[in-house]
Amino acid sequence: MKSDLFLGGQWISSTEKMNVLNPFDETVIATISLAGEEHIERAIALAGKAKKAYASLSTGDISAILMQITRELEARIEEFANLIVLESGKPYRYARGEVQRGIETFRVAAEECKRIPGEILALDWTEPGRGKKGRVEYKSAGIIAGISPFNFPLNLVAHKIAPAIATGSPILLKPSSSTPLTALLLADVIARTNLPEGALSVLPCSRVTGQKLVEDPRINVLSFTGSPDVGWKMKAQAGKKKVVLELGGNAAAIVHKDADIAATVQKLIVGGYAYSGQVCIHTQRIFIHKDKYAEFRELYCQEVEKLRAGDPSDKDTRYGVMIDEKNAIRVEDWLKEAEEYGAKIICGGERKGALILPAVVENAAKGMKIWDEEVFGPVVCLDYYSTLDEVIDKVNDSRFGLQASVFSTDHEVLETCYARLEVGGMIVNESTTFRVDQMPYGGVKDSGFGREGVKYAMMDYLEPKLMVF
Amino acid sequence: MKSDLFLGGQWISSTEKMNVLNPFDETVIATISLAGEEHIERAIALAGKAKKAYASLSTGDISAILMQITRELEARIEEFANLIVLESGKPYRYARGEVQRGIETFRVAAEECKRIPGEILALDWTEPGRGKKGRVEYKSAGIIAGISPFNFPLNLVAHKIAPAIATGSPILLKPSSSTPLTALLLADVIARTNLPEGALSVLPCSRVTGQKLVEDPRINVLSFTGSPDVGWKMKAQAGKKKVVLELGGNAAAIVHKDADIAATVQKLIVGGYAYSGQVCIHTQRIFIHKDKYAEFRELYCQEVEKLRAGDPSDKDTRYGVMIDEKNAIRVEDWLKEAEEYGAKIICGGERKGALILPAVVENAAKGMKIWDEEVFGPVVCLDYYSTLDEVIDKVNDSRFGLQASVFSTDHEVLETCYARLEVGGMIVNESTTFRVDQMPYGGVKDSGFGREGVKYAMMDYLEPKLMVF
Amino acid sequence: MKSDLFLGGQWISSTEKMNVLNPFDETVIATISLAGEEHIERAIALAGKAKKAYASLSTGDISAILMQITRELEARIEEFANLIVLESGKPYRYARGEVQRGIETFRVAAEECKRIPGEILALDWTEPGRGKKGRVEYKSAGIIAGISPFNFPLNLVAHKIAPAIATGSPILLKPSSSTPLTALLLADVIARTNLPEGALSVLPCSRVTGQKLVEDPRINVLSFTGSPDVGWKMKAQAGKKKVVLELGGNAAAIVHKDADIAATVQKLIVGGYAYSGQVCIHTQRIFIHKDKYAEFRELYCQEVEKLRAGDPSDKDTRYGVMIDEKNAIRVEDWLKEAEEYGAKIICGGERKGALILPAVVENAAKGMKIWDEEVFGPVVCLDYYSTLDEVIDKVNDSRFGLQASVFSTDHEVLETCYARLEVGGMIVNESTTFRVDQMPYGGVKDSGFGREGVKYAMMDYLEPKLMVF
Amino acid sequence: MKSDLFLGGQWISSTEKMNVLNPFDETVIATISLAGEEHIERAIALAGKAKKAYASLSTGDISAILMQITRELEARIEEFANLIVLESGKPYRYARGEVQRGIETFRVAAEECKRIPGEILALDWTEPGRGKKGRVEYKSAGIIAGISPFNFPLNLVAHKIAPAIATGSPILLKPSSSTPLTALLLADVIARTNLPEGALSVLPCSRVTGQKLVEDPRINVLSFTGSPDVGWKMKAQAGKKKVVLELGGNAAAIVHKDADIAATVQKLIVGGYAYSGQVCIHTQRIFIHKDKYAEFRELYCQEVEKLRAGDPSDKDTRYGVMIDEKNAIRVEDWLKEAEEYGAKIICGGERKGALILPAVVENAAKGMKIWDEEVFGPVVCLDYYSTLDEVIDKVNDSRFGLQASVFSTDHEVLETCYARLEVGGMIVNESTTFRVDQMPYGGVKDSGFGREGVKYAMMDYLEPKLMVF
Repeated sequence: MKSDLFLGGQWISSTEKMNVLNPFDETVIATISLAGEEHIERAIALAGKAKKAYASLSTGDISAILMQITRELEARIEEFANLIVLESGKPYRYARGEVQRGIETFRVAAEECKRIPGEILALDWTEPGRGKKGRVEYKSAGIIAGISPFNFPLNLVAHKIAPAIATGSPILLKPSSSTPLTALLLADVIARTNLPEGALSVLPCSRVTGQKLVEDPRINVLSFTGSPDVGWKMKAQAGKKKVVLELGGNAAAIVHKDADIAATVQKLIVGGYAYSGQVCIHTQRIFIHKDKYAEFRELYCQEVEKLRAGDPSDKDTRYGVMIDEKNAIRVEDWLKEAEEYGAKIICGGERKGALILPAVVENAAKGMKIWDEEVFGPVVCLDYYSTLDEVIDKVNDSRFGLQASVFSTDHEVLETCYARLEVGGMIVNESTTFRVDQMPYGGVKDSGFGREGVKYAMMDYLEPKLMVF
Repeated sequence: MKSDLFLGGQWISSTEKMNVLNPFDETVIATISLAGEEHIERAIALAGKAKKAYASLSTGDISAILMQITRELEARIEEFANLIVLESGKPYRYARGEVQRGIETFRVAAEECKRIPGEILALDWTEPGRGKKGRVEYKSAGIIAGISPFNFPLNLVAHKIAPAIATGSPILLKPSSSTPLTALLLADVIARTNLPEGALSVLPCSRVTGQKLVEDPRINVLSFTGSPDVGWKMKAQAGKKKVVLELGGNAAAIVHKDADIAATVQKLIVGGYAYSGQVCIHTQRIFIHKDKYAEFRELYCQEVEKLRAGDPSDKDTRYGVMIDEKNAIRVEDWLKEAEEYGAKIICGGERKGALILPAVVENAAKGMKIWDEEVFGPVVCLDYYSTLDEVIDKVNDSRFGLQASVFSTDHEVLETCYARLEVGGMIVNESTTFRVDQMPYGGVKDSGFGREGVKYAMMDYLEPKLMVF
Repeated sequence: MKSDLFLGGQWISSTEKMNVLNPFDETVIATISLAGEEHIERAIALAGKAKKAYASLSTGDISAILMQITRELEARIEEFANLIVLESGKPYRYARGEVQRGIETFRVAAEECKRIPGEILALDWTEPGRGKKGRVEYKSAGIIAGISPFNFPLNLVAHKIAPAIATGSPILLKPSSSTPLTALLLADVIARTNLPEGALSVLPCSRVTGQKLVEDPRINVLSFTGSPDVGWKMKAQAGKKKVVLELGGNAAAIVHKDADIAATVQKLIVGGYAYSGQVCIHTQRIFIHKDKYAEFRELYCQEVEKLRAGDPSDKDTRYGVMIDEKNAIRVEDWLKEAEEYGAKIICGGERKGALILPAVVENAAKGMKIWDEEVFGPVVCLDYYSTLDEVIDKVNDSRFGLQASVFSTDHEVLETCYARLEVGGMIVNESTTFRVDQMPYGGVKDSGFGREGVKYAMMDYLEPKLMVF
Repeated sequence: MKSDLFLGGQWISSTEKMNVLNPFDETVIATISLAGEEHIERAIALAGKAKKAYASLSTGDISAILMQITRELEARIEEFANLIVLESGKPYRYARGEVQRGIETFRVAAEECKRIPGEILALDWTEPGRGKKGRVEYKSAGIIAGISPFNFPLNLVAHKIAPAIATGSPILLKPSSSTPLTALLLADVIARTNLPEGALSVLPCSRVTGQKLVEDPRINVLSFTGSPDVGWKMKAQAGKKKVVLELGGNAAAIVHKDADIAATVQKLIVGGYAYSGQVCIHTQRIFIHKDKYAEFRELYCQEVEKLRAGDPSDKDTRYGVMIDEKNAIRVEDWLKEAEEYGAKIICGGERKGALILPAVVENAAKGMKIWDEEVFGPVVCLDYYSTLDEVIDKVNDSRFGLQASVFSTDHEVLETCYARLEVGGMIVNESTTFRVDQMPYGGVKDSGFGREGVKYAMMDYLEPKLMVF
């Protein structure tokens, strides 16, 4: 297990240390080095050198590096899955799925780096451009800072690093303090490739130290995945940087009257409780057409009852602890607040240490945190509606807009929802948590700024460059 | 009224003459010159010179020429509409609509000529390409021959000429012998622009003479709109040319059980009888779900009864004669053949000169010409079905595949039809005759080869050219 | 002449007033209303309504509105040119050219609004996406705030408004306080179209009041063209907005040893002194290969001597006053500072009121404002170099990077410069001031953030929206 | 070594047999089965079934099949290289390079199959389209027939099969009768994947039998690589098929006065004599600026003298026999004809069995086969020129137009050549034989019809399909 800093190609031990805990049993898994400002300073300097080294690599060279990473990850898939289980408490089945996705993220990058677009434009539309053409290519925007969250210790790190390599952009990555080990293990994989020295640093550090990544003017792009409040504040502090924010939401699903209720329930159980709801696109609000509400409610609660919490390293476990007790207490508090304001917990919600039993809530409404804020926990609110207009307005009546699901096979319903829902992505007949790694992903309103999904993230790490000739 | 040949910019009278008749009253409208081989020979020579002249024009110059054509057509819209009525017998309301579309076709070309794509490609994916890039631009493929039909005397001519000008490709156009006057009037419009001499010739001629357009090796692209048998034969005779064929079909509409029958009937009355069915995408076969068959049949026949034939120049006329008596007799014969084989004409079908009353047929089936072949007349066959699989198979059981309509709002029905219908275009909840001039248009199977719709036609008039640097 | 506020479709007089002066003779041209916070508040509310009105417009409707604007501008071209002369002191020949460009900007928008891209993506690359496709369309990002500078009173306003209309985005425009009249006249043109009420407000106001445009959270995009210091500060204050900054630079031209000196001099006279250098891409630094330095210097000074200042309304005038005396004094001061530090003014530089005689400077260097900062006045610094590496480093040794010119016909020189110059655009064998309105335009480093050039600006006013189905 | 037919997934022996010879020593390597009409008939029937099987594969499934082929080829690279040497007489160093390229061809296909484009189009530009959108996806055009030549027994087969698999199109491949074994070995590789049964048949057969591939109406696309006369005849016989022809040429290189002669000579030695000139883009004509002619001529002949013929299986061999004695005799005859008409062989040209010593010819001219026709042998003609106009005219004065090289670093020379050379591809400062497998490749004039280069070939194997909704 790697516990040193990965500083531009070298493993460095520092004096400042931090323990990494297993959320399931709260044992210490590892004691890691934390970076100080001086490490970030050195990493930036090395990144500056890496910019030049990248200039001599062909797209084939870069693609080969990225493909080597996928092969190495495939070979070490169990090691990665087990480490994710260990440091994040994510059930093994989901952890292994995450590694598969991480591999795919690097594979997509290996393919996309060869396909960065370039255009020839006619400029002779008007007299001043007679005889002129334009050529537009896209070049690295410079040095990237990536800040990633705890909930996908591998794949959300991959979504920062893979586009960076694909665009020839050196990157400094600050992993989550809860789950830094997987990021360091990935650094170990990448260290075995021909990536230019300085092109990657993985630097666990405190939020205070990490602020340098936000503010240092030599860094050109800041890509942050995490909580809305932190993210938007960074945008204001980021100076001249491009900023990409992948924040959270309170994702809604619309279950229309023509939906197949049994199938829908299965999908929204996953949407609501996978990794205890600690997913940006966790299904937080479900709006069911009134004609189907009772049926849905009954079936949904039946299925929730079947979710038994277990040891995340057990291959059969589908449900488990939250990342730490502090967060579980927060969710417990939010549930209490909701009850005080009139909501009804019809199922689950009890806390035991870092575990919250999967909760289903009725009568939640604006003004309650479990409705308005990102709960990032195993809580799902049920509500019903009469007309499509009404439910679209309800979904939109939120400061967030990441993804939403619509369960219907009515073409006009789907087109109306697509036109009017204020979200980054609308998912038809699947959970709000649907994501494949090549698709454009990100939110509107308070849910984010810019898009990830390798090809799309790459565009944010690039600058167009025009030649008029 | 123009009656001479338009030969590369000059109006030329020839000794060979032909009368143009008004289909409504069979009076002679004009006596025009026909081109002989020597005129085509000169037109090709002038086109060769025009290629060089085009090389000195900017995209702005070309766009300006095309915009000037749209403005001139707008100014002379009544003159064009009336001439179309006169020589084609098309009711005024449709003739005027055609001029509007012809204007749009030139406008689209004026915009697209500035947007011909060009690419920069990474070629350094492998070692032999290290340090190399590719640049791809699209250049005129050379001289175009266009052969157009009688049914859209302006707009189907525009769909040959506008992409030719937009790509800097000289064109020789052979208009239909039934409706050459509109094409000549368009030449009169274009003659007033700065189009290079030789860039356009409009040469009415016999099919025998016109064969030179098919076979001459100096012509690089042949774009033909007309009947399938003629078109496919040309493909074999066209030598090294690129060939685009816009042929006909026996377009089908599927009216599913969830369709709004009243609205669907209105749309399919237009699809079945506009310009007496003399439209490539005329709705020839309607398949109605068995649960709605009786309702549809009754309403459809009611509406057909309301179609009264009239003088095409009258602004209220919606229905009229066919292009000539010969074609009306052909349709009459096909109807008789169908009756002999067991079909039932439940409405219309009587002939009076060039007029056929709008016919609705039941029990038509494979082996009858009105089912298998392109009827190109006011005949619509009704049939019913039970399952989606069944009706998709029925629609596909045809040698044609141009456009098909599906009337349903079921998302899965639409996706299944889109995946499985063997057609160039599937139209949701509109008549098979839906076409706007910027959309890709053309058929599969025997219905055609290549696509029109200005941008798409332009790609067939262009060749990619690579630079490796 | 319009002097009221244009508030969402209505002309409103306010109590706060401001005089607009003619820079040439300092007479008062007009006294206009200034907006207060309450006007901006109302304009935002109306813009919110306009969002809904836009939803019912087709792309054809929007295109028609934009085309109507071009026609109206064409009809009033002299009126606009004269007004620009009057309020900006720009010589008539350049003012008229600007109106031509403004017309083109709206024309490009009229064409691009119909071509907003939409994609269908395969999502079934991996097992979780089996059976799924993605659909991506681009929708208006919401309400735009545009802030425009004095130097192109029409066209830099057009570059804010045209993309806004093209994307269906309501816009509030704050024109320059020096040149608000042209923007108001443009509002008068647009008021005659079918643009939804509330979709445009033109609100001259103080910088303090205008700050609301930067900070109000209901505004989704801030597009600013102006000075770097103001622009970058706004980025930090803009909250959750997308921000586009078109700032300035100290553009460099490289004159290589194989350049045609006579032709190059002509082009760089325009680059250096058109509109007295008050252009973002004004040629501020010219690097000449040492073998050609003496020849260039002599010819350049000869040509500078020929620039006689005159009445901007005179059709033969090529050179004139700056926007105001304050700015002329600033330039005079910067020249003095440079002389103190060792630079040599070899030509021009004297001030008379708002006029500065065109200045050529040698021995300017880092540490002098005329070298490091955006001079935005009629000052050009000459320098020489020996090797390509050296001159590329010199050009890049600046905090700016907007456009640069390279005068050479050597393919390898051009490719090296294109790869290594840190600029948004490299212009081959033309002045740094080359711009046509459809090309991507904008800078890197301190010169800007994002790109304008209608199609590119539109992408910043849009959000991608995914449907998974 | 595989010697049976590969018929839709099964290895089948037939009664008709053919010997495959080693061109180097004329020994029999293998005796293979030849397909008769009945085998083709069965292969077409199986292909029809494969169309349906493909419909259930995801793009991920197809990509996985193609990636498996690349891995298997990588594992068996020596086996393939040696077999190519054996049956084609190609020197080992080039044979191994070909296998590398064949692997890349499948890799590109594995990546491109996931990126088949799909579009959403605004159709509401005009009133009839109000409320409508278009969706365009690309679907397999149906069954492909591929006919491949002897000179790249693996990679030109790969360029037929890889795009077919990538587009889900069943393919029947007729390999060259001289080099069928490599194609059969590739079938052995592909047979180990999950490719649907019937999706690939490799059927060596006589030209007479192979005619069925050209004419059978159930085949939808014919892709032929081979000689011009055969190819163009096929186009006329191909019925309703799409046709892609990759034919030959008499490729020219322009060596301009600023070229680096030593480097150019090295590149054009490869262009002229690699695989004894049996390459479609073999450098047949070299035009040297008169100021550099003597220098080039001397150096070129020196280098030609160094080419020693050897055993192709020897790793150091760079030059060897032609494919058979018949072809060597043909080249000998063409050289004699040229001498009779006044050409001068200044180096090489002697024949010994299937070997022709590398020949350099001066004074060749129009009317001689070595100038006008595709020599497909180790013959290079040298000529000189004075002006760029003159040499461009000379290069264009040919019925062919595949690729041409230009050796110059003058930007204007390159732009002029790019604008005016009538070729599919212009190669800057590299041999005419430059090709990487992802680039668009193909000729104009008599050199071909359509483009290969995986992505481009795929477009010819696809049909656009529109949905209006």
